Amino acid sequence: MFLRNCWHVAAWSDELDQTGMLSRRLLGEQVLLYRCGDGAPAALVDRCSHRAAPLSIGRREGDRVRCMYHGLLFGADGRCVEIPGQERISPAAHVRAFPLVERDRFVWIWMGDPALADPAAIPDCHWQDDPAWRSLPATMHYKADYRLIMDNQLDFSHLSFVHETTLGGSLTIAHTRPVIEPTEGGLRLTRWYLNEPELAPFLRGVADLEGPIDRWHIYDWFTAGNILTLESGNAPAGTGAKEGRRDPRALQFQAVQALTPETEHTSHFFWTYGHNFKLDDPDFTRALQARIQAGFDEDRAMIEAQQAALLAHPDTPMVDLAVDQGPLLARRLLTRRLKAEAESAQGA
Amino acid sequence: MFLRNCWHVAAWSDELDQTGMLSRRLLGEQVLLYRCGDGAPAALVDRCSHRAAPLSIGRREGDRVRCMYHGLLFGADGRCVEIPGQERISPAAHVRAFPLVERDRFVWIWMGDPALADPAAIPDCHWQDDPAWRSLPATMHYKADYRLIMDNQLDFSHLSFVHETTLGGSLTIAHTRPVIEPTEGGLRLTRWYLNEPELAPFLRGVADLEGPIDRWHIYDWFTAGNILTLESGNAPAGTGAKEGRRDPRALQFQAVQALTPETEHTSHFFWTYGHNFKLDDPDFTRALQARIQAGFDEDRAMIEAQQAALLAHPDTPMVDLAVDQGPLLARRLLTRRLKAEAESAQGA
Amino acid sequence: MFLRNCWHVAAWSDELDQTGMLSRRLLGEQVLLYRCGDGAPAALVDRCSHRAAPLSIGRREGDRVRCMYHGLLFGADGRCVEIPGQERISPAAHVRAFPLVERDRFVWIWMGDPALADPAAIPDCHWQDDPAWRSLPATMHYKADYRLIMDNQLDFSHLSFVHETTLGGSLTIAHTRPVIEPTEGGLRLTRWYLNEPELAPFLRGVADLEGPIDRWHIYDWFTAGNILTLESGNAPAGTGAKEGRRDPRALQFQAVQALTPETEHTSHFFWTYGHNFKLDDPDFTRALQARIQAGFDEDRAMIEAQQAALLAHPDTPMVDLAVDQGPLLARRLLTRRLKAEAESAQGA
Repeated sequence: MFLRNCWHVAAWSDELDQTGMLSRRLLGEQVLLYRCGDGAPAALVDRCSHRAAPLSIGRREGDRVRCMYHGLLFGADGRCVEIPGQERISPAAHVRAFPLVERDRFVWIWMGDPALADPAAIPDCHWQDDPAWRSLPATMHYKADYRLIMDNQLDFSHLSFVHETTLGGSLTIAHTRPVIEPTEGGLRLTRWYLNEPELAPFLRGVADLEGPIDRWHIYDWFTAGNILTLESGNAPAGTGAKEGRRDPRALQFQAVQALTPETEHTSHFFWTYGHNFKLDDPDFTRALQARIQAGFDEDRAMIEAQQAALLAHPDTPMVDLAVDQGPLLARRLLTRRLKAEAESAQGA
Repeated sequence: MFLRNCWHVAAWSDELDQTGMLSRRLLGEQVLLYRCGDGAPAALVDRCSHRAAPLSIGRREGDRVRCMYHGLLFGADGRCVEIPGQERISPAAHVRAFPLVERDRFVWIWMGDPALADPAAIPDCHWQDDPAWRSLPATMHYKADYRLIMDNQLDFSHLSFVHETTLGGSLTIAHTRPVIEPTEGGLRLTRWYLNEPELAPFLRGVADLEGPIDRWHIYDWFTAGNILTLESGNAPAGTGAKEGRRDPRALQFQAVQALTPETEHTSHFFWTYGHNFKLDDPDFTRALQARIQAGFDEDRAMIEAQQAALLAHPDTPMVDLAVDQGPLLARRLLTRRLKAEAESAQGA
Repeated sequence: MFLRNCWHVAAWSDELDQTGMLSRRLLGEQVLLYRCGDGAPAALVDRCSHRAAPLSIGRREGDRVRCMYHGLLFGADGRCVEIPGQERISPAAHVRAFPLVERDRFVWIWMGDPALADPAAIPDCHWQDDPAWRSLPATMHYKADYRLIMDNQLDFSHLSFVHETTLGGSLTIAHTRPVIEPTEGGLRLTRWYLNEPELAPFLRGVADLEGPIDRWHIYDWFTAGNILTLESGNAPAGTGAKEGRRDPRALQFQAVQALTPETEHTSHFFWTYGHNFKLDDPDFTRALQARIQAGFDEDRAMIEAQQAALLAHPDTPMVDLAVDQGPLLARRLLTRRLKAEAESAQGA
C-alpha cells in the first residue's frame, strides 16, 4: 500500500529534456514524464485512453504527445485534442495528468487527489541546489518493498555490520541509542558518537582529518514521500560539536534520500551526499560519491536478500529489538496515515 | 476463451515432413504434428496417456509414435496399440487425435467436437497455392491475446500511425471509414482511397507505378479460426479501379492472415502476401516479403506493449472511437459464437 | 507435501568444511549448513529471527554465525547469544536448529519434531564409505516433484526405453515383472533377467565380461527420506547367481540414491554407484560414473518434460498400467505416512 496524497520524487530534473520522453513506474502506475517548450515538466498516465497503448512509444509533437497506434493527440494537461477520423472528443478520452513541482533538482509528483496538492508540503532539499554544497545525483533500483529500505534508514545500528568497512567502522554506532523526536512531518533522529578513535572507513585517505573525533548523524524522516534529510559530520574530539560549535576542521555532510515505490516489491531510490568543503575539488566529490555508493550497494544486497526471504516465507515471525524503536515509530506513523487516506477515500 | 468448433491453422504444410515431429501449443493444448508415409498429416495430444510424458520426445516408428518413457505405442489415430509388459489395452490408454485438413499450403486443425468437423467450412486461401500468384509463407509469434491482433486487423486506421513509413504513408487511411458488411462467415470491410499522390512507402522503389493512384483494401474476416483474406491494390488514379476495371499497370496483392491462439496471452500468426505480377522475379517476392515483415514487426511491437499495459492494469477502462466499428462488430460476433459454443457444451 | 519426521540427506559430508557456510533449500526451508571446529555439522534456519536476513550472507565467528544486518550472533544450537545494543535476549530471538547425523558420507537432517529424531532410523548406506567398494559422490538438481522421480525409481521398465542405449539395452527389462515385497521401511523389488545375450550398453567396453549373462536388480526403497539402495549385477549365464552363488567373474554394483525435496516442484538428488571390483582403477570408477550420469541425465530430461506437461495441465487424467505396481504401492505408503504425520501434528 502506498501513500498517494503526498509528493514523491519522480525523477531528477536533468532526466527530462525538451525533446525526449521518460516512462517510469511510480506507485504501481506507468507514468510518462517530459519537459515542455517553456521548461515546465509534464506527467501523464503512460497509457492511451483508447486501447491502452503506451504513449511513451508514441511521438512528441511540441508539448503534445501523439499515440502512434491510432493517432490520438494529448496535451500536457492530459486533454485529448485530436482523434483522427472523428470530430467529437469525449472527456472520457482524456488521460490523467499529475501535478508536478520542480524544486531542488527533483521533479516531485502528486499521485493522489490533485485538489490536495500543496507545494508547501514538499520537504526542503535545498542542499542539492545550493552553491555552498556539492553533490552528484544518484539513482538506484531496489527489488524490495520500500518499507524495508525505510526500516534500514531509520536504524543506523546496521552501520556497524552492513557497513563495517565502509560507512560504519565502529561498534559504537550499534551500541548508541538515538534520541528520537516527533516532528511535524515525521521523526527526527539524533545520534552522537563522542571521542571515536578514527574516521569512518569511507573517509580515510580522502579527508584531511584524523581521530580522535566526535561524530554525528542527525536526520529528519518525512512520512510523506519517504524523504530523509541527513546531516552528518566529524569534528576533532572535544571541540564542542555536540554543543553546536563547528570547528573549522570539521567535515560536514548533508545527504538527501528519496524513496519512491515502483511496485509492491520494488522501489526507486534517489540520493545525494553533499559536502560543504573542498567545493572546487570535483575529484573529491566523485570519490566521496563512489564510496557512498559502495556502502549503499551493501544495503541493497542485504535488503534484497531480506525481501527474497520474506517472499519465500511471508508468515515468518519477526522479533523486535531495542534498535527497532525508530523503524517501529516510523511504521506506525505510516500505517496511521495510510489508514486515514483509505478512510477519506471511502468517505469521498 | 477460444472457439474450438472451427478450423484453425496449425502449421504450414512444409513444416511437416515424413520423418520428423513438430510439437506446438495450440488453443492451450500441446499438439504433436507429423506426416504419415502416405502423406497424410496426423495430430495427437502431445502427452502420453500413461504418465503425461511428451510424445514429441518419443520416437517415430513408421506412422506410429512410441512414448520413450515406458514404451507405449500410438497410431496416427491416437489408438494405443502396444503397452510393453501387458496384453490388455484399455481404451483409456488412447490419446486424443485431432481432425486435420491440408489445403492451400496450410494444415488446418479442428480442436472441438470431431463430429462437427466439416472441411467445407475452411475459408478459401487458394492464392497461397495458385500459379497465378507468388508469396512466401511467414510465421510470427506474439506475446499477446489473439483478440488484440484481431482488433488491429479490423481497423486499418492504424496504418497511418503504426505504419507511417512502411505500409501506410498517408493520413487518408485514418480519415477513411470502411464500408462494413456482414458476410456468412464474418465481416467484409472495403476501403477506397482515391487520387492519392503516392504509393505506400513499402512499394516505393520496388514497384513500377507512380502516383497519383487509387488505392484499396478489401478484406474478409472469418470469425471461425480468425482468418483474414485481403485484396489490396493500387491503380493509376482515375482508371476506374473502384468501378471494377483493373488497369494493366495496377499492382494487386492478395494477403492471407491466420491467427491461432497459443495460450490466453500468446498467439501464432501465419501469413502470406501474394502478388500476381512479376511472377518470375523471386527477388521482388523476397523484397516485398521483407517490407511487409517490417510493417508487421511494427504491429507486434505496438500490440505486445498494449498487452503488457493491459496485464499490468487489467481493469483499465477503454474508450471506443468511430474507428472501432470493425473491431467492435467482430468482437460481438466472436463473443456470440463463444457463448453459443459454451451453451452447446453444457447442453451436451 | 513432504514427510518431515524422518531423515533426509542434506548434503555430502565433503560439502561442509571448517570455515565456509552452505545454504540450501530443503523441504521448502532455507537451511544454513556448516561444520564446527570439533568436526560436528550444524544446521540452522537460514533466516535471522530479527528481520529475516539470510545468515548465510553473515559471518562465521568460530562455531557461531553473526547476522551481518544488525549483528545478532547465533550458536550452532540456534541460540541467540548476542544482540548488539541490548542486554536481554528473548528466547524468541533464537533460530531453529535441526538435528543432524553424519554417516556414510551423507549429512542427514531431521526437519520434523526433534524429539522423534532417532539416528537408528537412518538406512544403511555403508557402501559409500567401505574400503571394499569404490564410488564417486554425485549431485543433480531436478525441476520436478520428488514423487515423479520416485515413480521412476520404482519402475525399471523404463530402462528399456529411456535408457535404451545406456543403462537398459534389452526389452527383457520392460517385459519382466519385479517381485515386490513389503519391508519394514518400505518396499523391496527384485528383478532377474536370465540368459541375456549381452551386457547393458553402459558396461560394454569397460567391463571384462561377455554375454550371455544373468542380470539382476534388487533394491530397497525407504519411504522415509526417499532412499534407495540398489544391488545390481551381471554374472555369466547359468552360474547360479539367482540361487545366491556369485561367480568370480560377476560384476556387482551397489548404488545409493537419496531424493530430498527442495520445493514442491524441484528436488535434490544425491547418488553413488559403487563397484567392488577394479578397486584400484580410478579410471574405471570415473568411466563408470560418467556412464551412469549419462543415463541419469536421460531420466532427468524425461521427468522434467513430464513435470512441465503436468504443470501445464494439472488435471490430466493418468492411466495406470501393470508396470506401475511398484510406484503405486510406494505412493500409497507415502500418502499413508503423510496422513499420519498431518494427523499427529493436529493432535499435538
